Amino acid sequence: MTTIPDWLGQRARTTPERIALSYQGTSVTYGDLEQSVAALAGGFVERAHGVGTRIALLGANSLRYAECVHAVSRAGAILVPLNARLTAAEIAFQIDDCQPTVLLVDPDSAELARDAVSAAQSSTRLEFLDRLEPGSPLLPRPVDLAAPHSILYTSGTTGRPKGAVLTNGNHWWSAVASALNLGIDQHDRWLATLPLFHVGGLSILLRSTIYGTTAVIHRGFDPEAVGRALTTETVTIVSLVTAMLDRLLSSGPFDYSGLRAVLLGGGPAPRALFERAAAQSVPVIQTYGLTEAASQVATLAPEDALRKLGSAGKPLMPTDLRIDGDGRAGSIGEIGVRGPTISPGYWHSARGVTSVTEDGWFHTGDLGYLDDDGYLYVVDRRDDMFVSGGENVYPAEVEAALVGHHAVAEAVVVGVPDREWGAIGAAAIVLRPGADPTSEELARHCRSVLAGYKVPRVFRFVPDVPRTASGKPLRRDVRPWFA
Amino acid sequence: MTTIPDWLGQRARTTPERIALSYQGTSVTYGDLEQSVAALAGGFVERAHGVGTRIALLGANSLRYAECVHAVSRAGAILVPLNARLTAAEIAFQIDDCQPTVLLVDPDSAELARDAVSAAQSSTRLEFLDRLEPGSPLLPRPVDLAAPHSILYTSGTTGRPKGAVLTNGNHWWSAVASALNLGIDQHDRWLATLPLFHVGGLSILLRSTIYGTTAVIHRGFDPEAVGRALTTETVTIVSLVTAMLDRLLSSGPFDYSGLRAVLLGGGPAPRALFERAAAQSVPVIQTYGLTEAASQVATLAPEDALRKLGSAGKPLMPTDLRIDGDGRAGSIGEIGVRGPTISPGYWHSARGVTSVTEDGWFHTGDLGYLDDDGYLYVVDRRDDMFVSGGENVYPAEVEAALVGHHAVAEAVVVGVPDREWGAIGAAAIVLRPGADPTSEELARHCRSVLAGYKVPRVFRFVPDVPRTASGKPLRRDVRPWFA
Repeated sequence: MTTIPDWLGQRARTTPERIALSYQGTSVTYGDLEQSVAALAGGFVERAHGVGTRIALLGANSLRYAECVHAVSRAGAILVPLNARLTAAEIAFQIDDCQPTVLLVDPDSAELARDAVSAAQSSTRLEFLDRLEPGSPLLPRPVDLAAPHSILYTSGTTGRPKGAVLTNGNHWWSAVASALNLGIDQHDRWLATLPLFHVGGLSILLRSTIYGTTAVIHRGFDPEAVGRALTTETVTIVSLVTAMLDRLLSSGPFDYSGLRAVLLGGGPAPRALFERAAAQSVPVIQTYGLTEAASQVATLAPEDALRKLGSAGKPLMPTDLRIDGDGRAGSIGEIGVRGPTISPGYWHSARGVTSVTEDGWFHTGDLGYLDDDGYLYVVDRRDDMFVSGGENVYPAEVEAALVGHHAVAEAVVVGVPDREWGAIGAAAIVLRPGADPTSEELARHCRSVLAGYKVPRVFRFVPDVPRTASGKPLRRDVRPWFA
Repeated sequence: MTTIPDWLGQRARTTPERIALSYQGTSVTYGDLEQSVAALAGGFVERAHGVGTRIALLGANSLRYAECVHAVSRAGAILVPLNARLTAAEIAFQIDDCQPTVLLVDPDSAELARDAVSAAQSSTRLEFLDRLEPGSPLLPRPVDLAAPHSILYTSGTTGRPKGAVLTNGNHWWSAVASALNLGIDQHDRWLATLPLFHVGGLSILLRSTIYGTTAVIHRGFDPEAVGRALTTETVTIVSLVTAMLDRLLSSGPFDYSGLRAVLLGGGPAPRALFERAAAQSVPVIQTYGLTEAASQVATLAPEDALRKLGSAGKPLMPTDLRIDGDGRAGSIGEIGVRGPTISPGYWHSARGVTSVTEDGWFHTGDLGYLDDDGYLYVVDRRDDMFVSGGENVYPAEVEAALVGHHAVAEAVVVGVPDREWGAIGAAAIVLRPGADPTSEELARHCRSVLAGYKVPRVFRFVPDVPRTASGKPLRRDVRPWFA
């Protein structure tokens, strides 16, 4: 068992005067953050949300949200950050899956939280982030790297979300891996405009604490606010997905001279975007990341951005990466990863944790190849997942919702490129005999059971859809229909 | 079991064009280093120096020495870097303790090595560093962090050296801890003028590989060469002990503008030295390190160098540090450390590895206190160890040598400050009745059994020496005799 000092506690001990968090003009030092977190954690434990429990968090990014991320760990509980864009039914499913004792909710998401808790079977309390009672300060205790830190829900082939468990060690190693790639400058200020409920945002908060640097938090993504923060907040690194970078570049001009990296996730970006970024001297670092790998797996250095266009670069230091298949450069196969950032498994309250790996490797479901120089190219995301406005959309989940409508016999959903959102959903529909619904009706149905970003924007009614012999939809053959 | 990719192998895969080593005008890329190391390791295995064996290294710093450090790991053997300043008898003792299958020796240390191997009981082969036969390249394999990487001999209370086992994980965590303190810049070039057979030098080599930065290697310490290397070799960090820094500052002026840190070890330095360094804008970072902790435990930031004069600063991120005793600021007690950099134990070929820790803490034997702000002050090194010319001298070992002379009844050795060497040994001697040796005779006797740096420079014949009730010499009471 490897234990190390509590990250925040050690930073409060060694670098108490440095700025830990910056949010809407407020700066919080590590010393002050330690005090808030210790008191919040004490309150959690006094209300029986302690060791062995799960604590769910629902809401947009905020200072209090960030404090609670640390306080949940301090209390010895497991953090479950929930996607605030989901429907109440979707959240209820996740609550029943991991059975948190409490759901901490931002006032803006109060109605959603109430509906979700009502719809759920488990007895989960509601507490409001702006009205949390502090308790006696809970002092730092050593952190066991093998212990679960958080459960992050991700969808997949089944269309049902699965809770990937990330240990303290997964997050620690991810932070170290990123540092060994990007370097560490104690004056770094990393902007979290991605939601803290996704691994891309959460990891900014955790690695900044480990480094003793500053996490600058925005409540949501606003390209103008990001552009201004580059100078007013002296941001040095920002994590974005493709559609966000596109909007940022269109909103300028901004002063990018203090920025040392834009970490760009969310799948391959078009050449034109890299060219526009290069023209404005924006240092873009493309990355391939996964929830089950605690974020980054491979990254492409800025100097290779145009030379190796479309590549996600090379694996990070502690991560081993392979392509299943014949091992030849250029051969497409499933991407496998292993190493200390990989989740030990998916959480199931009923039957424990099921391993995410087989023979030590996590089979990502994503397809890719390595070129002659060993650079990774991701050619298809698993289950034809696509990213819309920074959110992963799994077609299987949307198709399941569509066939839940009485008029739909079959549905195949694909992502199609979109200037504003990166990608949007497009659905090919085979109707039941005699049915004749409008696109609007199907969209409305989807919206009643799915988060808005998952709802297809384009519908096409077809007599038949292509499928494999085993009945899996051939999305690749459907995609050209929407070109 | 946590495994990660082979450090050098991963660097050769991800950053093959970066410079790994620079030595006497030769630069070696990670790609080229990988090839040399793979071939050397193949040769070791073909000559049966593979998994489960120890490989000892004897000599001054060189490119080939550095390659062999990596090649021993690649072969799956445990590295035993021996101190080239020891006598043949001292080396023979260590060889018999860890029983290496081979001693790799620099031509300059050939005679010493032959004498040592002759004097040793174990059947250890001699191979010359400049005549090593390469073998079929041995490709990188995953590194088990819990497996031993090296055995480093350190003396202690008993006067007999003990081989501290350092695992792959100890070195990895030490590299990460240092990075989280000093930051990482991919253009860093860290000068190793400290011997690679000590943890202070060895750790430069290993952490540079982990970071993908450059280790600049000097064969030995030459202040003029260090001063020139600051510009000709664009050195950004250098590790020195107090006496070395003193000589460097006296040899200048040099251009320190590209230097971001002098990591200063070897015990508290005098105020005047910090003031001279500050006057020349040399960014000194004092550190407290231990072989059993894979090097740095705590460090003082440059901005605190004068404000917290004499302090070794604060513990590194993954290291927990405490002072035994009442826990009040200012109270002196034994320094305890724990965390993933701490050695699992001392090697004994006969009876396995004995733990260095009790109840999870390594009791360093050093005395110190924490001030109100939590800064560490080391007031006495364990067993009154002192550092002479960069080498640790343990009085107990020197005293044991002195009482081995027929004329000496009792001996107490202390370190006294010295401008050139940092400290030199001074011996208080109680003679046997009727004996009347000269100081020169006692020094000559010491030189026949001890490395030269351990031999006292000052002798004082006294009727009696102060001791504790249990018979331990009270060195603190002896020290003023030599003031």
